Amino acid sequence: MNAQIIAVGSELLTPDRIDTNSLFLTAALNRLGIEVIRKSVVGDDPTQLRDAFGGALERSDVIVSSGGLGPTEDDLTRETVAELLGRRLIRDEKILEGIRERFRRYKRPMPETNSRQAMVPEGAEILPNARGTAPGLWLEARGRIVILLPGPPGELEPMFEREVSPRLAKRSPGLRLFTRELRIAGLPESDVEERVSGIYRQYPDVRITILAVSTEIQLHPRLWSDHEREANRVLDEMSERFALALGENLFSTRGQTLEEVVAESLQRQTATIAVAESCTGGMLAARLTNVPGSSTYFLGGIVCYSNEMKTSLVDVPQELIEQHGAVSSEVALALAEGVRRRTDATMGVGITGIAGPTGGTAEKPVGLVHVAISDRAGARNKAFQFAGDRQRIRLNATQAALDSVRRYLLFAAHTKE
Amino acid sequence: MNAQIIAVGSELLTPDRIDTNSLFLTAALNRLGIEVIRKSVVGDDPTQLRDAFGGALERSDVIVSSGGLGPTEDDLTRETVAELLGRRLIRDEKILEGIRERFRRYKRPMPETNSRQAMVPEGAEILPNARGTAPGLWLEARGRIVILLPGPPGELEPMFEREVSPRLAKRSPGLRLFTRELRIAGLPESDVEERVSGIYRQYPDVRITILAVSTEIQLHPRLWSDHEREANRVLDEMSERFALALGENLFSTRGQTLEEVVAESLQRQTATIAVAESCTGGMLAARLTNVPGSSTYFLGGIVCYSNEMKTSLVDVPQELIEQHGAVSSEVALALAEGVRRRTDATMGVGITGIAGPTGGTAEKPVGLVHVAISDRAGARNKAFQFAGDRQRIRLNATQAALDSVRRYLLFAAHTKE
Repeated sequence: MNAQIIAVGSELLTPDRIDTNSLFLTAALNRLGIEVIRKSVVGDDPTQLRDAFGGALERSDVIVSSGGLGPTEDDLTRETVAELLGRRLIRDEKILEGIRERFRRYKRPMPETNSRQAMVPEGAEILPNARGTAPGLWLEARGRIVILLPGPPGELEPMFEREVSPRLAKRSPGLRLFTRELRIAGLPESDVEERVSGIYRQYPDVRITILAVSTEIQLHPRLWSDHEREANRVLDEMSERFALALGENLFSTRGQTLEEVVAESLQRQTATIAVAESCTGGMLAARLTNVPGSSTYFLGGIVCYSNEMKTSLVDVPQELIEQHGAVSSEVALALAEGVRRRTDATMGVGITGIAGPTGGTAEKPVGLVHVAISDRAGARNKAFQFAGDRQRIRLNATQAALDSVRRYLLFAAHTKE
Repeated sequence: MNAQIIAVGSELLTPDRIDTNSLFLTAALNRLGIEVIRKSVVGDDPTQLRDAFGGALERSDVIVSSGGLGPTEDDLTRETVAELLGRRLIRDEKILEGIRERFRRYKRPMPETNSRQAMVPEGAEILPNARGTAPGLWLEARGRIVILLPGPPGELEPMFEREVSPRLAKRSPGLRLFTRELRIAGLPESDVEERVSGIYRQYPDVRITILAVSTEIQLHPRLWSDHEREANRVLDEMSERFALALGENLFSTRGQTLEEVVAESLQRQTATIAVAESCTGGMLAARLTNVPGSSTYFLGGIVCYSNEMKTSLVDVPQELIEQHGAVSSEVALALAEGVRRRTDATMGVGITGIAGPTGGTAEKPVGLVHVAISDRAGARNKAFQFAGDRQRIRLNATQAALDSVRRYLLFAAHTKE
């Protein structure tokens, strides 16, 4: 079975926007044993829509589209596909009531235009939308399956998982794609490649991608197979050999984020954490608290940009700042220790650095970041030099801080035994 | 004139890779007055390549492809396009000598397979590649222009600028694309549509896209014209009418983000700000400090998850929390006022809410967020009810808080006069 993905939306044909839903959809389709043979992006234009869906119906077993199901006049996917397949549009009272109910719940009147979202091509199955007003649609025609999904990823993804996957699973053949995802922190891409290339060359059936995603390196082995146990055995063996070669730099083999791994370690050790941030301005606290249940280990965060606030909010001695400068290992250590004492946390983290674009000097250039960790037994600092723009430096700094916390907790678990 | 972009490469049909060359190409084509009507991604497969290029030849004046010009056997773009257009492939001795020369320069022997890159469809113009071995190709057939470019952005981009742009500029008509970008906060998409639809219907030449991007609504009017002054006059007039219909909900007409607009207002009014966050866990501070130069107005941020920390870090009276609960207008107001006093800022912002997935009750459901703003004259609170998952609720809460700050500053500027 093969599929084509069509992303609908004129905004996706501008220089500013890219279709990323197709990445999620490709992964989900591959897991079901369905290969993607074409991806297209087409504007909200009836002629172009007809042409794109018409062509796809000729070449693919499954057509999945995203977008163009909104309530406004330029949302034309529903109408165009119905017309192309020769189906009438019928108003579905149950959908309409659901949309009305949704507006009532948020205490707002329903604009008349939203009633367009209740129009359904004859014979289509309705895919309920738990997160928005636009339902998805499942149509079968000319031996093809056509699946229309809403554009927002927050609506498309749960709809695919809940409604589309189970339906497609009943149809798809034996061959399936098996994958793993290994995540690495603290090693550059070329070092990862050097450590693992000798291993993956021994598995010619497994396709491997090495990715630099934001601030981490990922390894994605992929294996098509009709034999689940054998495929899993091969991938597990390969992953174990990768793990040996990568050591403690490998932090996740099941797709968890670095903050999720840190959260798990903190909870396992019943440790608590508090952070004092200068250049990252709250991003580290935001990442730590993005994990549900973070209130069990995250005690508090303080964002202190100015020298005065470093002193008044986190008790960094004024003389220390005068002597060493705000961006120094001494101040990072005092931030970590100060916030730990203020909150009585097991661990304190301090970050101070120069995110740019201005503020750098020859001695302390833009991108210099100090990360300190303190606990009752003492404190350690590490200096990093990051490249890139302000946002990239800040992101790298939070990644380095989270990775330092992770390594500290590995060490703490080790010394406890 | 219109164009289709075809990205060639099986790796672009995996869940890990996305075609980003099309963003560069779209911007470059639009500048030349050429509209992109379709983007496709297709694997290195002769049938699929024939189908994609064949379809594009039917619908577009210009076809630009990237990738599939490499030296290996799965690079088939050259061969397939030549066959499709009925052209013979001829070996170009000058290209071959150039490739040999390149290998000599890097002191490496030329693999035999690289000689495939010297094969050129009859009648094609050669686009020299300053950065690699694969030359680009320019073909004209059936009244269409077909441009084959190499995949690596470092080779594609300079080749387009040096070789393709000047050639296309001679062909393309006077028409160019003129655009605006309006951003709106505090109104849902359907309300925006209702307010502006009566206006944009009066401008049939202007195409308009209404976008829900993350937590805001954007309006993108686009007008193709050969008369710069007239096009700008029309778009300015339209934008002004939009501005009147949208009132203070419109926060940006030049593509600035909400945090940039808030930063500008704070700086203009020489006001300073400090924030105390519970459920957003540092995200508001992170957004405020993502603007370069934020140290001039951002004094400090405190992330206080637990009740104890609300009391010890921001002086929220313990009785207040016991009486009204941590998620209440009273506590939001106390957070705003507490952090303002601690930092001596002009404005304090307090956020408390339930980001979920757990912790909601019938009375205080997941998604309930209080945002308070305080200054020397007093304090105001607003309650919001957001939908979606944890990340979405947190993002919406920071957007609501930033928008409240923006509206407060508008009012402050007004009352000052």
